Amino acid sequence: MKAKIKITLKRGVLDPQGKAIQGALGTLGFAGVEDVRQGKYIELDLAHTDAAKAKAEAEAMCQKLLANTVIENYEIEIA
Amino acid sequence: MKAKIKITLKRGVLDPQGKAIQGALGTLGFAGVEDVRQGKYIELDLAHTDAAKAKAEAEAMCQKLLANTVIENYEIEIA
Repeated sequence: MKAKIKITLKRGVLDPQGKAIQGALGTLGFAGVEDVRQGKYIELDLAHTDAAKAKAEAEAMCQKLLANTVIENYEIEIA
Repeated sequence: MKAKIKITLKRGVLDPQGKAIQGALGTLGFAGVEDVRQGKYIELDLAHTDAAKAKAEAEAMCQKLLANTVIENYEIEIA
């Protein structure tokens, strides 16, 4: 099964990378960009054929390695 | 409107970051991880209130700045 994981900074955590993108978009002439937040996107191919088990494993991976849960949120989608 | 953009490496492009994650997951005892690909995830807050216009603008941003279309694909979701 495939697990698609979005990892984003929590609200309130500074995102200098996002601010840099926002500035660059402004310089390129894109007006009306009110906020930009950059996160990570990870696609996993798991051997599990059971969606619930795959999700539980992906969740454990996020907790242990993929996300820093102090400052990041994650969202898992199994497909 | 919010634009959520996933930027991923095209198939066939080497992904050393993904390989490093795969190795680290193996070391942590997660068996059965067949492949890992890492990409970027960007959330934009746009002033547009029209979904079609917001999508067109996000598309232009991807082409001009956010994605390297030689080696990356992007997917835009407007919410």
